[in-house]
Amino acid sequence: MSLINQVYPVIWQNDSSGSLHGRVLLIDQTRLPNEFAFVEISRCDDMARAIKTMIVRGAPAIGVAAAYGMYLGAREIETTERDRFLTELETVAETLRVTRPTAVNLFWAIERMLKTARQTLGSVDYLKETLLQTAKQINADDLQTCRDIGEQGLSVLPKAPAKLRLLTHCNAGALATAGYGTALGVVRSAWRANRLERIYVDETRPRLQGAKLTAWECVQEAMPVTVITDSMAAHCMKRGMIDAVVVGADRIAANGDAANKIGTYSVALIAKAHNIPFFVAAPLSTIDFTIADGSQIPIEERDPEEVYQIGDTILCPPGVEYYNPAFDVTPASLISAIVTEYGAFTPAQIQSELYAKQIG
Amino acid sequence: MSLINQVYPVIWQNDSSGSLHGRVLLIDQTRLPNEFAFVEISRCDDMARAIKTMIVRGAPAIGVAAAYGMYLGAREIETTERDRFLTELETVAETLRVTRPTAVNLFWAIERMLKTARQTLGSVDYLKETLLQTAKQINADDLQTCRDIGEQGLSVLPKAPAKLRLLTHCNAGALATAGYGTALGVVRSAWRANRLERIYVDETRPRLQGAKLTAWECVQEAMPVTVITDSMAAHCMKRGMIDAVVVGADRIAANGDAANKIGTYSVALIAKAHNIPFFVAAPLSTIDFTIADGSQIPIEERDPEEVYQIGDTILCPPGVEYYNPAFDVTPASLISAIVTEYGAFTPAQIQSELYAKQIG
Repeated sequence: MSLINQVYPVIWQNDSSGSLHGRVLLIDQTRLPNEFAFVEISRCDDMARAIKTMIVRGAPAIGVAAAYGMYLGAREIETTERDRFLTELETVAETLRVTRPTAVNLFWAIERMLKTARQTLGSVDYLKETLLQTAKQINADDLQTCRDIGEQGLSVLPKAPAKLRLLTHCNAGALATAGYGTALGVVRSAWRANRLERIYVDETRPRLQGAKLTAWECVQEAMPVTVITDSMAAHCMKRGMIDAVVVGADRIAANGDAANKIGTYSVALIAKAHNIPFFVAAPLSTIDFTIADGSQIPIEERDPEEVYQIGDTILCPPGVEYYNPAFDVTPASLISAIVTEYGAFTPAQIQSELYAKQIG
Repeated sequence: MSLINQVYPVIWQNDSSGSLHGRVLLIDQTRLPNEFAFVEISRCDDMARAIKTMIVRGAPAIGVAAAYGMYLGAREIETTERDRFLTELETVAETLRVTRPTAVNLFWAIERMLKTARQTLGSVDYLKETLLQTAKQINADDLQTCRDIGEQGLSVLPKAPAKLRLLTHCNAGALATAGYGTALGVVRSAWRANRLERIYVDETRPRLQGAKLTAWECVQEAMPVTVITDSMAAHCMKRGMIDAVVVGADRIAANGDAANKIGTYSVALIAKAHNIPFFVAAPLSTIDFTIADGSQIPIEERDPEEVYQIGDTILCPPGVEYYNPAFDVTPASLISAIVTEYGAFTPAQIQSELYAKQIG
């Protein structure tokens, strides 16, 4: 497989007869790293299924995909009556909302699309065209946001050593966003600024996004990358192999508590025990100021099969029970800084520094 | 597969023509939980290979297997000259010593067999017969030791709640010992005393001994068992789902630092962060009073394939590097008590309470 220079997991493709007949191309993330292939999505239901089955995953990428999903759903609405259209668009929104419960970007993107429809004057056809433009804008904005997060992160990483050994968990990379990545965007910026010695990647059981996706992205960009199992991180820290941790987030509460892929809380605890800085990199849209703290973030539980089966191999004997939470919550007290496109802030600062920007 | 009531991973089987032509049966632990099958071992080289490839694994079980391996090697020595025999027996010992570097029980069992040979008067044939009896004794002693550890552990578990939710890592069960288990021996004793609500088992990447072996043992004994990925333990603790942690050890230094399966240190750190008691269950023979602290315990690094491949599935893309330490060291400060066949002691107590017993 040749190297992929720029990774964009969600791509809008116009039809030869124009954008209104276009489709979304999703990198099929369930087939990486062994196959690099796209899935074509032309219907809202298919987009909902792609989000649910994690063909597309990662909080910001889900937001972008859902925005296009809203347009695809809008395109399927047959009425020319504005009020009827807006009512049916609510149904489309609900189809997409129920796919994944934890990532706030999903709800944020859907709400922005609904608001756009409500606030746009003109014919239903014009509304549809505007929704497509809005989805494209969300896509473009997220890409720029990630690049900004990368730069902001670079400024907050430890000054010494000159070349850092960073650890990340799961995939908060280009594949999890419109491109470039949040946590991996910071790593990427460090790499491009010649400040990266090596990136250690937790494999991230049960779905192995670290081993499969983050490792793949790092190889595409020729970064020195070492994959470890999740339980090795503490041992690596004790041996002085890690200078800082950078992870993404699926939802951040107003107090700075951050929900992210299961195991992130564990990494945060062990980083604290070794006095290693722990950074959460996420766009402003990930912060949910409507909830006071992390206890209010719903945690998705997924199919036990993710735990007991890998490929064709059944790992466990019959008769065993499973618990498979997809996310955990890292308390603000364990987070050195939250890196956004507007700068890096301590958890205590986000309310005063960022709330106005989000509602503005 | 019907339930296996008593699990003995290392079994001596006499030949119809007598014990001198007997063999060792090993449960093939690389094939569990899908297949319950035995491997026949009649030669020392085959025993060394079985230890190295983890057909038999777990510190005490390795000790028992190595003891029989010493006998099998002794049986192959053709001389009737005592001195020559003892010299060749040193070569046999070396073949077995180089299989795994971390577990002290391996070296302990080999030394005990060598000492027996040196201290036994009589013909070479008599020495060989004595070595077989000694291996059988090591086997029987380990089984009794595990039962005693189970009872001692039961007395030190939290008094409340009445029925405990315990967490273990890897497999320190019947399969890892002559039978019954150390850490899982404590869990087993709790279950039999009606003090176990549920055992949570870390799957224990990379080799998945928790998911494959511990889960299988628990199912055999009808214990309520829940398998989680290693990174979920912190989240479970935060949710109040775990009352205590019990793990085994491959080697314990004089100060109480304990080497055990990779990831144990991580579990100890997160247990401490949640004020959950953390117990190490191991026989006296696991304590290596010749080393002052854990920094002197050699940590085996194993094949990267264990990280990047499960069954036929390759998890990672080409171009990635790996780090695969098989063990880590949990500092004494994180250990609530070390449970031995002589009682449960704080790490600080083991030197004064147990050293005399070991050399005696």
